[in-house]
Amino acid sequence: MGAPILDEELSMIGGEFDLIDRFFKRSSTHHNRELALGIGDDCALLNHSAQTQWAVSTDMLVEGRHFLSTVAPERLGHKALAVNLSDLAACGAQPSVFFLALSMPNPDEAFLQAFSQGMFALADVMQVTLAGGDTTAGPLSICITVMGRVQTGMALRRDSAQPDDEVWVSHPVNSGIGDARLALEVFRGTCSLAQADFATTRDRLELPSPRVQLGLALKDVSRCAIDLSDGLCGDLNHILKASQVGAEIFLGQIPRSGAMLSQPLDRQHQFLLEGGDDYELLFTAAPQHHLRIRELAAQLGLGISCIGRITAQPGLKIWNEQGQALMTRYASFDHFQTSRWGLDES
Amino acid sequence: MGAPILDEELSMIGGEFDLIDRFFKRSSTHHNRELALGIGDDCALLNHSAQTQWAVSTDMLVEGRHFLSTVAPERLGHKALAVNLSDLAACGAQPSVFFLALSMPNPDEAFLQAFSQGMFALADVMQVTLAGGDTTAGPLSICITVMGRVQTGMALRRDSAQPDDEVWVSHPVNSGIGDARLALEVFRGTCSLAQADFATTRDRLELPSPRVQLGLALKDVSRCAIDLSDGLCGDLNHILKASQVGAEIFLGQIPRSGAMLSQPLDRQHQFLLEGGDDYELLFTAAPQHHLRIRELAAQLGLGISCIGRITAQPGLKIWNEQGQALMTRYASFDHFQTSRWGLDES
Repeated sequence: MGAPILDEELSMIGGEFDLIDRFFKRSSTHHNRELALGIGDDCALLNHSAQTQWAVSTDMLVEGRHFLSTVAPERLGHKALAVNLSDLAACGAQPSVFFLALSMPNPDEAFLQAFSQGMFALADVMQVTLAGGDTTAGPLSICITVMGRVQTGMALRRDSAQPDDEVWVSHPVNSGIGDARLALEVFRGTCSLAQADFATTRDRLELPSPRVQLGLALKDVSRCAIDLSDGLCGDLNHILKASQVGAEIFLGQIPRSGAMLSQPLDRQHQFLLEGGDDYELLFTAAPQHHLRIRELAAQLGLGISCIGRITAQPGLKIWNEQGQALMTRYASFDHFQTSRWGLDES
Repeated sequence: MGAPILDEELSMIGGEFDLIDRFFKRSSTHHNRELALGIGDDCALLNHSAQTQWAVSTDMLVEGRHFLSTVAPERLGHKALAVNLSDLAACGAQPSVFFLALSMPNPDEAFLQAFSQGMFALADVMQVTLAGGDTTAGPLSICITVMGRVQTGMALRRDSAQPDDEVWVSHPVNSGIGDARLALEVFRGTCSLAQADFATTRDRLELPSPRVQLGLALKDVSRCAIDLSDGLCGDLNHILKASQVGAEIFLGQIPRSGAMLSQPLDRQHQFLLEGGDDYELLFTAAPQHHLRIRELAAQLGLGISCIGRITAQPGLKIWNEQGQALMTRYASFDHFQTSRWGLDES
């Protein structure tokens, strides 16, 4: 299983948004009064009542692309649901039901027992109910559709960042982001970690915690959020593009785990900025909410770090630990206008 | 692509319901006031308002299992959406939105152009909007989740058949059911057809017409329906099991196309009873609605044939064209209590 998962993922991300824009994003030929927000955010929004909307999201996980074949089935069950709940969290929605479509080569009972156990353990914690599904023979892949409730007009959206907003990212207390990518690189053999650090980062890769409570709490302070699945730069660029703004990010303020700090600085930058699979929330908020957000972090037992700010001028600037503009490009997000970061590169 | 798709499908159907029952159907650990009907019918039902519920269904189509690799992408786009709309039809729901998760080996533009064209052509006819989705690299598979509206408490359900109800099946005018399976058998080389007949039956396999209008119209006459995806016996058995009733079916009353009539009688029986991929509606209705249903058929330009009746005594009896009980078993639906049909076989 030495396939370069994340590299393919990243190049496919480029492809993915091209594909969606070119072939699937279109003006509908009829007015749909039920659909409040369609393709292009973490969730679609459907009108439910005057007070409530449904947030809906669907994600497909494919073996060798989104998970390693070596992952324990119980962890896979957890993760498949977690990445979908993370989309609801990014909209500030309260999870309600989910639907599971599962394709697998043969009905492996031990796998299914462990997979369903991991999935339901998280479902119970999040109070979300499996409402239907489909199982079929085929290559191992998992498609989950989740639905959650959000107060009408109050969903967090990618297109709502405002100039001068602060940019925040959630993370475990006394830890940081990028650890899932770090664990993947250990699996790939491109770096190494002490055994205890590997166990911690591997948990971050295989057992992400969807930030549902944080998403719900953000409605008082934020209008704009996304979940970190494609990496910090990639996901921040989704916000910048949708909101038609820019941002500057301070590398020195991006939180890092002890495992991350054990790596050479250039790898740290790569893991923090290209990241992937964090399933933390990246959000923006007006500066007057700064203290309230720090209080929220304490209430939720979560780290939330301010890592930069939104600018009226388009483009993403990244400042390194010495206050110099970062010149390196870490991945080719070539479908974004704002993908080339650094002051002097254009 | 000579793989025995439908045989694997059928054996997997046995596996599928076992899997769902054993690993995914469970009492929820919390009360979900939004969920009116969970796993076990064509659609789940979610409470929307006092007047309306959402019907939701998800289906995954995998290359080599649900479609041949030779199918034209435009037809595949049509069919992927059609089989999902058929689930809404079976609930009597009005389609509203759908979500598409698409996994494919590489972003093939010609394929995507044709696939999306076929999908959107049907979406426009059915006034259903693509509201979100996910694309990823992986083996070719398509997972669609559809949502439709139904009047609260009025959804057609599998568990609502009553003794003495008549059993009805829809089909094209001057044609019948089983043609999709017939076309598949031609692809497999187990039978042959005149060229014109092959073209017609191939359309039935590749371009099914979800009976959405019929499903909506049935609310005045029926409480119980299912769509024919697993074959007449398999799907009727779903109704019998859920409703805790039996049925008798008259083979001579099951409608047949000219192509079907060109086949030997034993193959006809196989195609009619094991069928698969018809995406017609099978429903039950009290006898007093007989004439109203015939009128409906004329209004909708559709064939609707009465093929039997529901009995209080459990079990499925099938009478052949000569009025004799059928002894042959055509497929092993071994997970059903009521799967062994015929009077003298037990």
